[in-house]
Amino acid sequence: MSKQKRFFLSEEEIPTQWYNIQADMPNKPMPMLDPKTKKPMTPEDMFPLFSMEASRQEMDQEHAWIDIPEAVREQYKYYRSTPLVRAYGLEKALGTPAHIYFKNESVSPIGSHKLNSALAQAYYCKQEGVTNITTETGAGQWGCALSYAAKVFGLEAAVYQVKISYEQKPYRRAIMQSYGAQVTPSPSMSTRAGKDVLTVDPNNNGSLGTAISEAVELAMTTPNCKYVLGSVMNHVSLHQTIIGLEAEKQMEMAGEYPDIVIGCFGGGSNFAGISFPFMRHVFSGERKTRFIAAEPASCPKLTRGQFQYDFGDLSGLTPLMPMYTLGHNFMPANIHAGGLRYHGAGVIISQLLKDGYMEAMDLKQSETFKAGLLFAKEEGIIPAPESCHAIAAAIAEAEKCKETGEEKVILFNLSGHGLIDMAAYTQYLAGNLFDHEVSDEEVTRNVKELEQIIK
Amino acid sequence: MSKQKRFFLSEEEIPTQWYNIQADMPNKPMPMLDPKTKKPMTPEDMFPLFSMEASRQEMDQEHAWIDIPEAVREQYKYYRSTPLVRAYGLEKALGTPAHIYFKNESVSPIGSHKLNSALAQAYYCKQEGVTNITTETGAGQWGCALSYAAKVFGLEAAVYQVKISYEQKPYRRAIMQSYGAQVTPSPSMSTRAGKDVLTVDPNNNGSLGTAISEAVELAMTTPNCKYVLGSVMNHVSLHQTIIGLEAEKQMEMAGEYPDIVIGCFGGGSNFAGISFPFMRHVFSGERKTRFIAAEPASCPKLTRGQFQYDFGDLSGLTPLMPMYTLGHNFMPANIHAGGLRYHGAGVIISQLLKDGYMEAMDLKQSETFKAGLLFAKEEGIIPAPESCHAIAAAIAEAEKCKETGEEKVILFNLSGHGLIDMAAYTQYLAGNLFDHEVSDEEVTRNVKELEQIIK
Repeated sequence: MSKQKRFFLSEEEIPTQWYNIQADMPNKPMPMLDPKTKKPMTPEDMFPLFSMEASRQEMDQEHAWIDIPEAVREQYKYYRSTPLVRAYGLEKALGTPAHIYFKNESVSPIGSHKLNSALAQAYYCKQEGVTNITTETGAGQWGCALSYAAKVFGLEAAVYQVKISYEQKPYRRAIMQSYGAQVTPSPSMSTRAGKDVLTVDPNNNGSLGTAISEAVELAMTTPNCKYVLGSVMNHVSLHQTIIGLEAEKQMEMAGEYPDIVIGCFGGGSNFAGISFPFMRHVFSGERKTRFIAAEPASCPKLTRGQFQYDFGDLSGLTPLMPMYTLGHNFMPANIHAGGLRYHGAGVIISQLLKDGYMEAMDLKQSETFKAGLLFAKEEGIIPAPESCHAIAAAIAEAEKCKETGEEKVILFNLSGHGLIDMAAYTQYLAGNLFDHEVSDEEVTRNVKELEQIIK
Repeated sequence: MSKQKRFFLSEEEIPTQWYNIQADMPNKPMPMLDPKTKKPMTPEDMFPLFSMEASRQEMDQEHAWIDIPEAVREQYKYYRSTPLVRAYGLEKALGTPAHIYFKNESVSPIGSHKLNSALAQAYYCKQEGVTNITTETGAGQWGCALSYAAKVFGLEAAVYQVKISYEQKPYRRAIMQSYGAQVTPSPSMSTRAGKDVLTVDPNNNGSLGTAISEAVELAMTTPNCKYVLGSVMNHVSLHQTIIGLEAEKQMEMAGEYPDIVIGCFGGGSNFAGISFPFMRHVFSGERKTRFIAAEPASCPKLTRGQFQYDFGDLSGLTPLMPMYTLGHNFMPANIHAGGLRYHGAGVIISQLLKDGYMEAMDLKQSETFKAGLLFAKEEGIIPAPESCHAIAAAIAEAEKCKETGEEKVILFNLSGHGLIDMAAYTQYLAGNLFDHEVSDEEVTRNVKELEQIIK
């Protein structure tokens, strides 16, 4: 490991506003549609499910800057600014002329960027008199963040965790329980959606789609209970822009500006967080930055999916969203990067990809762990399997610079650490980790069905 | 969770010297003895095993302040200063008038305080032309720190991990391997000590004592290879004083001074680190601070052991040390706080306890996890099982303040986070965690044998 260089902001320099990219987008995202009427949704249509403030933020295409509530900013100060690090060790190991920087979101108390939005959403719920919040989680990064945020603002949290994760990965479950959350394996007998699945298949292992349906149902049928979501939605991306806004100031401290900005990609929250603030200078014509979303080859919605209206969950309880998707029935392989196993992309990202403001790169699981281990050796931090995708993409770009001799500045987001994912590394180190191919038939099958939905 | 208040030092304020308490102790520690000749050891006697600089520091009773090498301080800056936190949430939950502070060593890249000494020892080895270092580890905190430090300074690391931990807790092993260390389950066939054990008992699960014997043997029989140790030794305590020296400055920023300083206790490294700098003001008569070492009731060397010359390892390869001990044959119950499962205390601590400068408190495993969970809920950090002992002791003292109404200032060291120990929490939350009683017969049996050793 070579000497690292780290950049921090003082408390006063931590941003006081989030950046709402919708206001500046040349082409606004198409509207979400009510699943029953197929008419465009209004913020009011979302009030029964989400907090009012989150609902308003979701559809706000006017205000480019939105104030971070003081109580949320106070909580941010507990772990922010997160460090911007010049990865000298990685550069040297690669022998690249590129300058590689990463934003280290793994230093948050729950180990990932997810807390940035969990705190905001929990705060708004509390302000609006909500007493209970509910969500779904797969491997558990988001569930941990939400459990922590609920505790901070004095709310009760109920988390539906995909049953196979609940059983096979008990550690994040234990973290959620340590923060006082009630964690239920999904499918469960506590909801109609869960019962329906279990009636047909008593041993069903669960899926994110089912867990979302259960959480949504609980929120809709419980007084003073709201649903909160950890990715995909516009207001979640908004809250995550704190990452890129800090990085912008920190890059200035380093005296550089990124040519390429990279984030791993599941529903879009951390990619949006690191990218959107830099993208506004591309809209304005000031800069020509490239933005790369790094997704798993086994869940290739951006590189091989179609732009189409689709549901966010399995049962079709969510609004219809215009998104790059593999179809809400697509069942991704059980890769270790659980946070990237989602069939669709958020509506803003989908529009930006369509309009050519960003690119996507797909990466094989083995390639990402190889990259993650090199990063661990050179930079001392064991990355989350999700973050390994961003690292692998950054390495691919740095290798290109080596060929061309270009001294490009590459910035990627280290969305979280992998300390709860050591089982995955153990498997990789033992040579027991395989790649998952997705056939063209799988990619197109589910999307074809979609075409019927909005007719 | 209430608002936390955190105190940081600027880079310039990070201490430039460690504090060597030996120079100021009213009664110096008794000498270590050569296991063969029973004569006092000199630094030169230790050169074959340890780096020369560590050997000199081990016996230095003259210099109260020892410079931190610039290269080590540069590495410290990567994660130091660690935060000093006022635990308002915990205070509120307890309803105590006490002011509770903790020093958060869990923010280091490997998640515990162990790195403070690993970096120093690896650096000295590198400076002295050593190419390979070896050590033992139980659960793996120290092994991870050493693997990381070896990578930083370009050394090869070989770690003997107690076999039952190697098999049952593969995650810290994977972390060590991620940093490039060679990890061998102990007992192994790679050493005489290991072979001897396996010949008698092919299915032997290993112990810290056996693993130490193996690492020592490897160092003694390999060119350019030194042994490094993570606790017990004086030079390790010396390197850890960075914790207390920072805390002293940070408490000043908070405008308070601790009445009570607490650390959990295995071999002594983190307790020494937080305590020794404050203790010098007690020696000088300026202050009347109390110091409490929190040990597991199942390994009660300080509260129930005897002051006696004993070996540091099972096979008797180490020097004889004057220590509070349960006997080097004592086999502690398999509690989750693996870092506290050691039969003896370092020689400085033993002298200080004998002289009444510090106290010890023993805690049941269930009590420590209960305390750890309250802490996690109120302060947002899941503590290592070892650190839970310090938290439980701090809570016990804060509860006393509640009874008496005293507004005491309590400072404890949070030696590490528990993210790799979630299996233990899972067990506790499921009600499957039991306490281990130690009989008087067990406590005295092994120590009686010791009386023969130095005759």
